[in-house]
Amino acid sequence: MCTDVPALVEAIRSLAVRGAPLLGLAGAYGIALAAARGFDVDEAAESLAHARPTAVNLAYGVRRAVAAYHAALREDADDAQAAAAALAEARVLHREDAEASERMAAHGQVLLEELLPAGGHRILTHCNTGALVSGGEGTALAVVKSVHRAGQLRRLWVDETRPLLQGARLTAYEAARAGMAYTLLADNAAGSLFAAGEVDAVLMGADRIAADGSVANKVGSYPLAVLARYHHVPFVVVAPTTTLDPATPDGAAIEVEQRPGHEVTDITIPYVPLPGQEAGTGVPVAPLGTQAHNPAFDVTPPELVTAIVTEDGVISPVTADGIAELWARSRSGNGMMSI
Amino acid sequence: MCTDVPALVEAIRSLAVRGAPLLGLAGAYGIALAAARGFDVDEAAESLAHARPTAVNLAYGVRRAVAAYHAALREDADDAQAAAAALAEARVLHREDAEASERMAAHGQVLLEELLPAGGHRILTHCNTGALVSGGEGTALAVVKSVHRAGQLRRLWVDETRPLLQGARLTAYEAARAGMAYTLLADNAAGSLFAAGEVDAVLMGADRIAADGSVANKVGSYPLAVLARYHHVPFVVVAPTTTLDPATPDGAAIEVEQRPGHEVTDITIPYVPLPGQEAGTGVPVAPLGTQAHNPAFDVTPPELVTAIVTEDGVISPVTADGIAELWARSRSGNGMMSI
Repeated sequence: MCTDVPALVEAIRSLAVRGAPLLGLAGAYGIALAAARGFDVDEAAESLAHARPTAVNLAYGVRRAVAAYHAALREDADDAQAAAAALAEARVLHREDAEASERMAAHGQVLLEELLPAGGHRILTHCNTGALVSGGEGTALAVVKSVHRAGQLRRLWVDETRPLLQGARLTAYEAARAGMAYTLLADNAAGSLFAAGEVDAVLMGADRIAADGSVANKVGSYPLAVLARYHHVPFVVVAPTTTLDPATPDGAAIEVEQRPGHEVTDITIPYVPLPGQEAGTGVPVAPLGTQAHNPAFDVTPPELVTAIVTEDGVISPVTADGIAELWARSRSGNGMMSI
Repeated sequence: MCTDVPALVEAIRSLAVRGAPLLGLAGAYGIALAAARGFDVDEAAESLAHARPTAVNLAYGVRRAVAAYHAALREDADDAQAAAAALAEARVLHREDAEASERMAAHGQVLLEELLPAGGHRILTHCNTGALVSGGEGTALAVVKSVHRAGQLRRLWVDETRPLLQGARLTAYEAARAGMAYTLLADNAAGSLFAAGEVDAVLMGADRIAADGSVANKVGSYPLAVLARYHHVPFVVVAPTTTLDPATPDGAAIEVEQRPGHEVTDITIPYVPLPGQEAGTGVPVAPLGTQAHNPAFDVTPPELVTAIVTEDGVISPVTADGIAELWARSRSGNGMMSI
């Protein structure tokens, strides 16, 4: 439970709160919390927006709530009324996110029907993109759930997603709850699944999509994109338009968060403490002093992405023009504020 | 410590003894042990040779010792003399393996000088292929050590190698002991290293090489081969000629061992028990009942392999003819027995 902004920033940094859409909601609600508690809202915005650098939704959610707060003050609201305006805006964002989930699911399901007319899809996914990261059913996993409800999901291949095992811990949980036929695998076992022709499509989320269509997502996404291309399997990214970032021109301009090496050198058993062990305590598996390279994300260039599914439609092929067009349509269509 | 054959079979199955060359030695010494203890040697051979299906060296080591044992009996040796003959043959194999390591290291180093004339190599490796799996310095890691001694190793990128973390536990240990500049990474972080141009060559071992040059190796090797090809980086396999298996025509004919799902669904902290926990106890990280796909190996087709380095020379390009030629030369040259 986070009752002040520093606690929320720490929850975001430690990934207790994670996933692009949910980070947006956390940012907005965090501002509402700061305003209600009488903290300096602009200071809170600064620390929240920079808690993690790659997911663009976090900064977006913060900006939405801050803008509502300041707009209220400009209209002579008192502090309590301005805080209420920030909270109302966070709730609007929350509702928008749930609606976006539904629309992404619908667009994604239609796209899969077109790409894979035979039905009975075997879908590979990476990291966690479901209800645990969203005000609704999520992004890529919302599409999977929709396909599942339509009786068209033959199997969901769940990448465990090292180092933090979001696939094993979270996606497997959501898949089990939804009653899907799912199978967990070590990330590097995906290669032989492709080679055996057992993957019909790859579906994943995104943390930031640059103006040229480059997609930053959980580390391990790019190798799957290369494997998918090598095996002529569609590689589909599902993300709300809030993940599009026209201010970032291309993949090289995306800042990739480097996380602490101990996430790789030590195995942390999250939420399942052993007797005598606190939750989250790491057990070293590599020799002491081992240095680890631990980027949280990687970047997939647009030429490897078959399609980007958003709540406002599908971009395919993925080009700068396609991104710009959807962005313009999305801004005019649903009154999304300028960023 | 294994004092009978069932214990040794269990040590091989549980991967306490692992790695292609070492499995060959374990098979040969296991036969010597069975003979010395008065067990039925042919029965021991049957259970040892099939303890794990993919690594061809295991069956090869068993056959060498069994052949020496029966040859001695045919020449009127008594049981003790036949057991001594099996042990002597295991020691010959051990010595041959150490010599093969040295020669692979030398050939591999020359190959890297040719492929990467600029020097200062940044080499990515997967699983463990060093002194811990060999009578000598190993296979791929023997080449890396040789390059390191020559002052030409800029960095060794060590894949952690899920699910059993042989890279984090074993290769990192050998790299640290040898004083190499090494960095550990989650397997799926290799993709962005390739994309950033930070990998000059991939070096790995093999568990079985089919007649067409298809290479079975630790799961995760094939995705690296695809990434290496996509980024025009050499993908080099280092293996003794005992790993070549002309009786297996191609990759499709290689039996890939499927290992228990709990290696993926549960995290086992090997050798580092926590207070109150036995070593090797798994802690579940996925929901109970989660099914996992856990192949121990994958198969890389010859067209993705830049070169195969053996103790008797380098095969490049990797073709059925190249394999057959080296096989014939190797058998005539060092008197290797017919398989």
